[in-house]
Amino acid sequence: MARIVQKYGGTSVGDIERIKRVAERIKAARDEGNQLVVVVSARSGVTNELIARARAIHEHPSDREMDMLLATGEQETIALTAIALHALKVDAVSYTGAQAGIFTDAVHTKAKIKTINARPIEHDLKAGKVVIVAGFQGINEDGQITTLGRGGSDLTAIALAAAIKADKCEIYTDVDGVYTADPRVVKDARKLAEISYDEMLELASSGSKVMQSRSVEFAKKYDVVFEVRSSFNHNPGTIVKEEVVYMEQVVVRGVAVDKDQAKVIVSNIPDKPGSAAKVFRALAEANVIVDMIVQNIGHNGIANLTFTVPQGDSHRAEKALEPVFTELGGGEVAIHDQIAKLSVVGVGMKTHSGVAATLFQTLADQGINIELISTSEIKISVVIAAARADDAARAAHAAFGLEKAV
Amino acid sequence: MARIVQKYGGTSVGDIERIKRVAERIKAARDEGNQLVVVVSARSGVTNELIARARAIHEHPSDREMDMLLATGEQETIALTAIALHALKVDAVSYTGAQAGIFTDAVHTKAKIKTINARPIEHDLKAGKVVIVAGFQGINEDGQITTLGRGGSDLTAIALAAAIKADKCEIYTDVDGVYTADPRVVKDARKLAEISYDEMLELASSGSKVMQSRSVEFAKKYDVVFEVRSSFNHNPGTIVKEEVVYMEQVVVRGVAVDKDQAKVIVSNIPDKPGSAAKVFRALAEANVIVDMIVQNIGHNGIANLTFTVPQGDSHRAEKALEPVFTELGGGEVAIHDQIAKLSVVGVGMKTHSGVAATLFQTLADQGINIELISTSEIKISVVIAAARADDAARAAHAAFGLEKAV
Repeated sequence: MARIVQKYGGTSVGDIERIKRVAERIKAARDEGNQLVVVVSARSGVTNELIARARAIHEHPSDREMDMLLATGEQETIALTAIALHALKVDAVSYTGAQAGIFTDAVHTKAKIKTINARPIEHDLKAGKVVIVAGFQGINEDGQITTLGRGGSDLTAIALAAAIKADKCEIYTDVDGVYTADPRVVKDARKLAEISYDEMLELASSGSKVMQSRSVEFAKKYDVVFEVRSSFNHNPGTIVKEEVVYMEQVVVRGVAVDKDQAKVIVSNIPDKPGSAAKVFRALAEANVIVDMIVQNIGHNGIANLTFTVPQGDSHRAEKALEPVFTELGGGEVAIHDQIAKLSVVGVGMKTHSGVAATLFQTLADQGINIELISTSEIKISVVIAAARADDAARAAHAAFGLEKAV
Repeated sequence: MARIVQKYGGTSVGDIERIKRVAERIKAARDEGNQLVVVVSARSGVTNELIARARAIHEHPSDREMDMLLATGEQETIALTAIALHALKVDAVSYTGAQAGIFTDAVHTKAKIKTINARPIEHDLKAGKVVIVAGFQGINEDGQITTLGRGGSDLTAIALAAAIKADKCEIYTDVDGVYTADPRVVKDARKLAEISYDEMLELASSGSKVMQSRSVEFAKKYDVVFEVRSSFNHNPGTIVKEEVVYMEQVVVRGVAVDKDQAKVIVSNIPDKPGSAAKVFRALAEANVIVDMIVQNIGHNGIANLTFTVPQGDSHRAEKALEPVFTELGGGEVAIHDQIAKLSVVGVGMKTHSGVAATLFQTLADQGINIELISTSEIKISVVIAAARADDAARAAHAAFGLEKAV
C-alpha cells in the first residue's frame, strides 16, 4: 500500500465525461490498495469566464474579491469529482483549500503557502476515504480565501505530498511527460523517463509549458519526487527528482523554444553610473519580467541596453521607460517581437565544455543569426529570428543526439 | 442613520447588468448614511445548472457534496456584487456563510440555523464597509459547508437582521409586494401596505409564491419586521409585522389560488382503528406533503379518505399506498389533478362570522362546485375545478371588497 497524491489539471476535468474518466482512474489506483489524495483544478475555461465577468464590472477588480470569485471554480470540481467517485461506489470526500488546512500569507491572487495542517486529511485517509482537494486555493490567518496564482494547483499537490509524506506525487496533465523538444516541431523528440529538478527548472523558464518553476522549486526544496503524465492515456510519464541516472554522461537533456518573447533595445542613454539601475527599477515597478540582459560597452558617453520581456509586457515596458529617459536626459526604445529564445538544458553541461561551441556552429551551419546570448550553469539560451526557431530546434536536437535514448 | 439588511434574489442579480443596478441601489441607501448588510442569492439559473451537472454524474448525489457544489453559486454573486460596489467607490467586502458566522446543524441541503456570530460583520460595519453575505449557506460545527434549503436566502437575511438588531429588513424580489390577489388574474387586485405574520404564513401555504413559510415563521419568532419589495422599481412594498393597523376591521386580507395541487381519493379501505394512520404514515415516509384531509364517515365497514398533495408528489403517493392496501386487505386510489385550491385569508376572520357563508354563496352564484373544504382560524380553503379557479378568485375578491383600500 502506498500513499499517493494525484493532481488533475483543468483540461483533465474539463467536462462531465472527463470528470467521470478521472474518477475511474482514481478508483483504479484505489482498488490497488493505495491511500489517495486528489487535487483538482477548475474546469478549463471556468477561471477565464469568471475573470471576464469581473472585468465586465470593474477594470481592476480587487484582489481579495477575485480570490473569493475564482475559488468557486475548484470548489465546483471537487464536489463533482467526489460525486463521480460515489457513482463508482468509492468513498470520497471533498475539501476546499481552507478545509484541507492550507494556510497562506495574506497576498491575495498570489499567496504563498505557509503551513499545512494535514490532520483532517490524515483522519479521512485512515477512515478509508479518497480525499479530493481544491487546488490553487488556501486561507490566511484572518480566515480570508486566498489563491496561489499561476500553477497553483501543481503547488497544492506538491505541498500536500510533502505534508502527508506521500510515496508518490502524480501530476496529470494534457501532455505525456517532458520531451527532449516540442514533439510538434521536432519529429524525433523523445520523452524523458527522468529529469532532475534543476533541468526541469531551466526548461520551465525557457518556455516549456509543462509546469511553473515555483512548483518545481518547492518540490526540490522539500525533496518531493513527482511524475508528470497524461490523464488521457496510460503511458508512463517523466519522473522529476534530484539525482537522475546517467546524469553525468548526458550533456544536454532537452531543447526548449519560447516564442512569447520580445526584444527591447534601449539606446542613446547617457552612460553614467546608475543609468542601468534606473532603467531596471522602473521596469520592476511596472511589474515587467525581464529575462536576458546584454549591455554594450559605453561609447562617446552613450550606452545601449538590450533585454527580453514577455510579449504581453512590451508596451508596459515602453511606457515605464519614458519618465526614465526624461530623468536621464536622453534615451530611445525599440521593440522587436519577431524573435524567439532557444535554450539547451542539461546538468552534464557543467562538466563538459564545448556545448556552446556546438550550438553556435550548428546555428551558423543553418544560416541562423544569433542576436543575444545568455548562459547559466546548466543552460545556454540564444535569441534568434522567430521564423527560424523551429529549424533551429530541429538542428540543435540532432546536433546533441537527443533522439537516442541514453 | 439606520442599520439595514437588504436581500436580493436570483432574478435581481441574474446578470452583470442587474448586479450593477443592485450595486447602485445599495450605494443610494449607503449615501443616506445607513449601515448596510446585503444578502444575495445565486444568479437565477445557476443553481439549476449545478444540479443538472451533478445529476448527469449520479442520480442521487450525496447531500454533503451538493452543499459543497451549490454554495459556489452565492459565492460568485457576493464577489461580483462587492466588485460592482468598488466600481462605484463604495467600500464593500464579501462574506461566505461560514465567514458571516452562520452556524447550522449538520443536516445537509436543509440545515437549520443554530447561532450567528455577528462579530466580524459588526466589525466591518463599524469600519464603514458594506457587508455582502452569501445567502442560503452556513457552516456546521465540523467546518462542513451546509445549505438551508428552499427560501434559504430570505432566511439568511431575516436571521442576520435579528442577529445585528437591524432597524429594517428589505426583501427585494421580482414582485412589488403582497397583493390582495394575483394581479394577473384579478385586475383590481391591490398591493397591501401591511400584512401580519400570520396572514403572510397562511398566504404562503396557500400558493402565494412570494416567500417560504419558514422565513416568515423565523421573522415572527424573532420579531423581525421586514418589507417585501421589487428590485426593478422604487415603489414601496408590503411591510410584514406582528400587528397591523386596522387589523380588526379587515375581515379578509387576500385571496390566494394554488393550481399545483392534486386530489387523492382513497376508497374502499376497511374501516378499522388505525387505517387512516397507516395511510398517512406511508405517505410521510415517502416524503409526500399532505395538505387538506377529509374523511367520510365509515359505511358498511368501508371508509373513504380524500386529501390534496402537490402535483409532483401524486405518483409517489400512489406508489406509497400500494403496500398499505395489501396490509389492510383492500383499498383503491384515484388521482384528480384538474383541481385548484382557493383560500381567503385574514386575521379579522377570527372575530367575524359569515366569511364562510359569503364565500360559499359567491361560488354558488358562479355555478362553481366545492369539492373539499378546510378551515383554520384565519383562513378558509376550498378545492374547486382548476378551470374555474380564476373566475372564483375574481368573484371572491369582489365579494369581500378587496379592491378598496382600508
